[in-house]
Amino acid sequence: MIIVMRKGHSVDELTGVVKFLETLGLRAHISEGEEKTIIGAVGDERLIERDKLLDLNGVETAIPILKPYKLASREFKPESTIIGLNGTKIGNGRVVVMAGPCAVESYDQVLETAISAKQAGAKVLRGGAFKPRSSPYSFQGLGRAGLEILARVRDQVGLPIVTECLSQDDVAIVSEHADIIQIGARNMQNFAMLEKVGKQPRPVLLKRGMMSTVEELLMSAEYILANGNYNVILCERGIRTFDTMTRNTSDIAAVPLLKSLTHLPVIVDPSHATGDRKLVPPLSLAAIAAGADGLIVEIHPTPDTAMCDGHQSLNLPQFSALMDQVRAIAQVVGKTL
Amino acid sequence: MIIVMRKGHSVDELTGVVKFLETLGLRAHISEGEEKTIIGAVGDERLIERDKLLDLNGVETAIPILKPYKLASREFKPESTIIGLNGTKIGNGRVVVMAGPCAVESYDQVLETAISAKQAGAKVLRGGAFKPRSSPYSFQGLGRAGLEILARVRDQVGLPIVTECLSQDDVAIVSEHADIIQIGARNMQNFAMLEKVGKQPRPVLLKRGMMSTVEELLMSAEYILANGNYNVILCERGIRTFDTMTRNTSDIAAVPLLKSLTHLPVIVDPSHATGDRKLVPPLSLAAIAAGADGLIVEIHPTPDTAMCDGHQSLNLPQFSALMDQVRAIAQVVGKTL
Amino acid sequence: MIIVMRKGHSVDELTGVVKFLETLGLRAHISEGEEKTIIGAVGDERLIERDKLLDLNGVETAIPILKPYKLASREFKPESTIIGLNGTKIGNGRVVVMAGPCAVESYDQVLETAISAKQAGAKVLRGGAFKPRSSPYSFQGLGRAGLEILARVRDQVGLPIVTECLSQDDVAIVSEHADIIQIGARNMQNFAMLEKVGKQPRPVLLKRGMMSTVEELLMSAEYILANGNYNVILCERGIRTFDTMTRNTSDIAAVPLLKSLTHLPVIVDPSHATGDRKLVPPLSLAAIAAGADGLIVEIHPTPDTAMCDGHQSLNLPQFSALMDQVRAIAQVVGKTL
Amino acid sequence: MIIVMRKGHSVDELTGVVKFLETLGLRAHISEGEEKTIIGAVGDERLIERDKLLDLNGVETAIPILKPYKLASREFKPESTIIGLNGTKIGNGRVVVMAGPCAVESYDQVLETAISAKQAGAKVLRGGAFKPRSSPYSFQGLGRAGLEILARVRDQVGLPIVTECLSQDDVAIVSEHADIIQIGARNMQNFAMLEKVGKQPRPVLLKRGMMSTVEELLMSAEYILANGNYNVILCERGIRTFDTMTRNTSDIAAVPLLKSLTHLPVIVDPSHATGDRKLVPPLSLAAIAAGADGLIVEIHPTPDTAMCDGHQSLNLPQFSALMDQVRAIAQVVGKTL
Repeated sequence: MIIVMRKGHSVDELTGVVKFLETLGLRAHISEGEEKTIIGAVGDERLIERDKLLDLNGVETAIPILKPYKLASREFKPESTIIGLNGTKIGNGRVVVMAGPCAVESYDQVLETAISAKQAGAKVLRGGAFKPRSSPYSFQGLGRAGLEILARVRDQVGLPIVTECLSQDDVAIVSEHADIIQIGARNMQNFAMLEKVGKQPRPVLLKRGMMSTVEELLMSAEYILANGNYNVILCERGIRTFDTMTRNTSDIAAVPLLKSLTHLPVIVDPSHATGDRKLVPPLSLAAIAAGADGLIVEIHPTPDTAMCDGHQSLNLPQFSALMDQVRAIAQVVGKTL
Repeated sequence: MIIVMRKGHSVDELTGVVKFLETLGLRAHISEGEEKTIIGAVGDERLIERDKLLDLNGVETAIPILKPYKLASREFKPESTIIGLNGTKIGNGRVVVMAGPCAVESYDQVLETAISAKQAGAKVLRGGAFKPRSSPYSFQGLGRAGLEILARVRDQVGLPIVTECLSQDDVAIVSEHADIIQIGARNMQNFAMLEKVGKQPRPVLLKRGMMSTVEELLMSAEYILANGNYNVILCERGIRTFDTMTRNTSDIAAVPLLKSLTHLPVIVDPSHATGDRKLVPPLSLAAIAAGADGLIVEIHPTPDTAMCDGHQSLNLPQFSALMDQVRAIAQVVGKTL
Repeated sequence: MIIVMRKGHSVDELTGVVKFLETLGLRAHISEGEEKTIIGAVGDERLIERDKLLDLNGVETAIPILKPYKLASREFKPESTIIGLNGTKIGNGRVVVMAGPCAVESYDQVLETAISAKQAGAKVLRGGAFKPRSSPYSFQGLGRAGLEILARVRDQVGLPIVTECLSQDDVAIVSEHADIIQIGARNMQNFAMLEKVGKQPRPVLLKRGMMSTVEELLMSAEYILANGNYNVILCERGIRTFDTMTRNTSDIAAVPLLKSLTHLPVIVDPSHATGDRKLVPPLSLAAIAAGADGLIVEIHPTPDTAMCDGHQSLNLPQFSALMDQVRAIAQVVGKTL
Repeated sequence: MIIVMRKGHSVDELTGVVKFLETLGLRAHISEGEEKTIIGAVGDERLIERDKLLDLNGVETAIPILKPYKLASREFKPESTIIGLNGTKIGNGRVVVMAGPCAVESYDQVLETAISAKQAGAKVLRGGAFKPRSSPYSFQGLGRAGLEILARVRDQVGLPIVTECLSQDDVAIVSEHADIIQIGARNMQNFAMLEKVGKQPRPVLLKRGMMSTVEELLMSAEYILANGNYNVILCERGIRTFDTMTRNTSDIAAVPLLKSLTHLPVIVDPSHATGDRKLVPPLSLAAIAAGADGLIVEIHPTPDTAMCDGHQSLNLPQFSALMDQVRAIAQVVGKTL
């Protein structure tokens, strides 16, 4: 932490800051500039509550030097985390594509989708049993019945499944049925939920909040890691900006940035980022070209009749065509599907 | 809902849309423009899933005409909602100020604050027992012990208390101890939590998410109302923008806007909006001048030693001085404290 | 400037940074932390191009300590700047209200507006002769004829005039006719224009760009000051955010923030900030309550027939009623109209 | 235009709207819904000033159906615009890479860069003679001397040049020396400048403002087209969002979106979007994978000593390596370099 003193601070004020640091077991390294005095706090700056420093007399500002997350950082663990999943591996230099319908509607719908997805090269089946809806009057998903459909199809087709958990009360049952638990964008800072999924054994797919910085995403991952679950997959799914021509703005540069900051795998959701089927393939290719470890894509046998998000779902032949291009792009950046 | 057809659509495509609407019990009102054909959907447009419409062949876009919330709207209930609270009323043309420490630290701290706050004119005591922290390593609040301190001080000083509920698991215990349950900005779209607080009897203080629109805030209120709890207080607490000179950007114009759209009371949190003590008084006055029904302000007997957010807390004399100005501004806009 | 070295940097890399600073006439103050080495640059950090520092081997980041603007800062000039204008003074503890139509349409329209505005207490007449329009097909203003109408009404009614200059080519003619030259939000970083208005004698009303930070606004003011014109009035007019319920989001907390950072007067434009007539009065009152030195408000004798922005213009009785409330709020915060 | 009437509007108010439309030569198509009456305006809606409609009594809102730009739209001109440039063509299914230093520093620097860039496959040389700087105290570029260096290198190496015009006063001289005139992000809505470059013969590279929507970018292109210059290249260069981990947020999905809305070529600037050299290659590949017609990249023989933006510049071997990958990605999406 670097502490900048106000112009014209008193000696007592300077001494006050030094003592404050010493109380925490840190040392102060004072540097008198021409216009400002600055103090370097030597020791573990994570022990300092920055707000308290800011309240000491004479302090103008305090600038953290260390990152606020630790377990999630590449400095802490330089080698990339590889997450094993019944034979499929995520984060090991292959591109893993997860695909499936926005919402589980029926056994037949999920089965047909799963068979096609697997044929096209997908390694994980996605599907929503619990649906987060901004209106209390919208279709909220099939709930537990949806989970059972997913599990049945998984056993039949042989694709592991990822599905969202919406309520703390459902962590146990989702963990029991799914292979990966998804935490949606709106729950990225639901800290009670993060603790709960940190204490169960399934890998967690953590979606970036639409209002969250890259650093906050890593802090939320830190919550899960600090509770004992090291298998976290990060997912960039578009952030909210002033432009509303696309549903959200996909932050593709966040992919290589995250890969440099953390050892955790990073995938992209091109469907929610754009909300528009015709933009899903170009954005999928962009994500892989930028270094993503995978994709999570919405597909549907008959998007026109989908119970939700049909407008952004690819149909099965479209998905299959996309996979061919994904394969080719992966090769250019030194990966395989 | 207005449906705009693509240029050069076919007759079949037009018929498809008409049939789609009729299936839902609506009628189609076709209007052929010079460049575009548009269809007005006559009937309850809330029955239409917009995404499905967008997926019909020949459809370019679909524009909702009705607001997506109903119970929360002034059209539905023109007269303002007044929330009774042991004698104090919120939303009835008086300005209600809620004040207290960011975090409950000790019985003495809360007691001293409560006595001063009441003396200065505050009508509700705020204080955090459960603290939402972006780092798993930060102080997380005293928890249940904090609730008990708040309840004890309430009984002694005679101020109703408002405190945040962070976990679905704590809704019952917070409801038991507090007079108003606060839903924090990060949980504004935690729909499982919204349902739970909608089913308990205490009034709910719903904070706007830092990247949530005014409409989304109203939709989240709708969740609570639709579950049976009509006593919701909305709170503007700053939104996230590109400028980081203040912690958040206080959206003061949202106050009169909300007052025109909804019958629910609207208050402002100047402390979290700015994150800077010196900006709290001017923003508080601005909020009242703009028509807010109240404020929720962080105060502390000794902000320099506060366990969190001291930097944005007023000390007790500062709060008392602010209240004098709030009283004068309230009078100008036809209200009393 | 604080320079943070990468973990595991070499001695040569450290020496490289020290030499770089010495070349610029600064001294390096090295501080070895437990995890990081940091270097304080002692001397005038404005001499350092931060990008170059970032490119030196071993450097992780570089954090400026000083503000990038100087002439505009309160540290440089603690007493508030007061701008004289034929008897009217801006920035001296009075509230100055500028009012008038969005666009100059005719002599009669401007005359009627000016008489009413003066009667209600306005001290400056606003009116657009050159209109910035995002569409090349929209009404672009009366141009020079508009300037002449404004000047004629000024002479008759005795209100100084403020009007926007849209093109570098028009700086001379606007300077000749107007009492204050307005630089619009879209030109806030038109540096060639800023230099030109910095070299002419009229006070400049500089509007914050809708995408500009408070610091960038002050940097643009610095351009004008550095070119010799010390009479700059800053204007907060709403910034662009993710919420589109109001045209822009008025950043009211920026008013007290600016007042603490700079000696220049700060006013608020409630009309463009909201784009909605019914929100103009509450926002005007909020601005004055927050400490603004004035307002610039759009008014029109018959808003329904206005050639532009009628939807956000007050009619003359509405403006007069607003002025009564502005007067009362000003008094509460220790000012007069 | 769709006009939505307020609930409970009077017959007179409805008649007022109908008459208003008829005065403009449009017809009104009335549709009475269960909750709202809506009116479709039949005819050329570009004739309607929306603000005026909003001011008519009884009108709740008015929704445009047509796009506000015409000449720039694909509906107006379905085939893609191809811009010829001494043998090089932009927009014809090849990927065109423009490369060069942020600022022109010397003849030798530009010459060395140009030779390497050409060798690596670049088709256009970029370089700043006039530099937009937010501080009046920063290096502002070599000005006219810089233009002459660029022109001399162009003649020697045989690469056409693109350079930014910062001031209306310099349009003529930049047009005389450069092959493409660049309008920077901060001038995207400098309408006086847009008109001037619309009236000269060189192609224009129009950068998206950092807080401009895709639609506003197209409106600014419309200004240039409407003034007679049909050779406009659009450039996505990152927008400003709440996250500051990268300098700006590159909006990659805007590339395929723009390609669907307009016939104009679309390129991407990965250097300004990220402000970080290590993110430039992955973002460049992403842009091409998403369908961009080209890139504009900052390169420098010795980035560590660059006079500006060295931190985001690739050195020459890095650029050459990037071009090999660009070539491979281009092939996957059916293009050549």
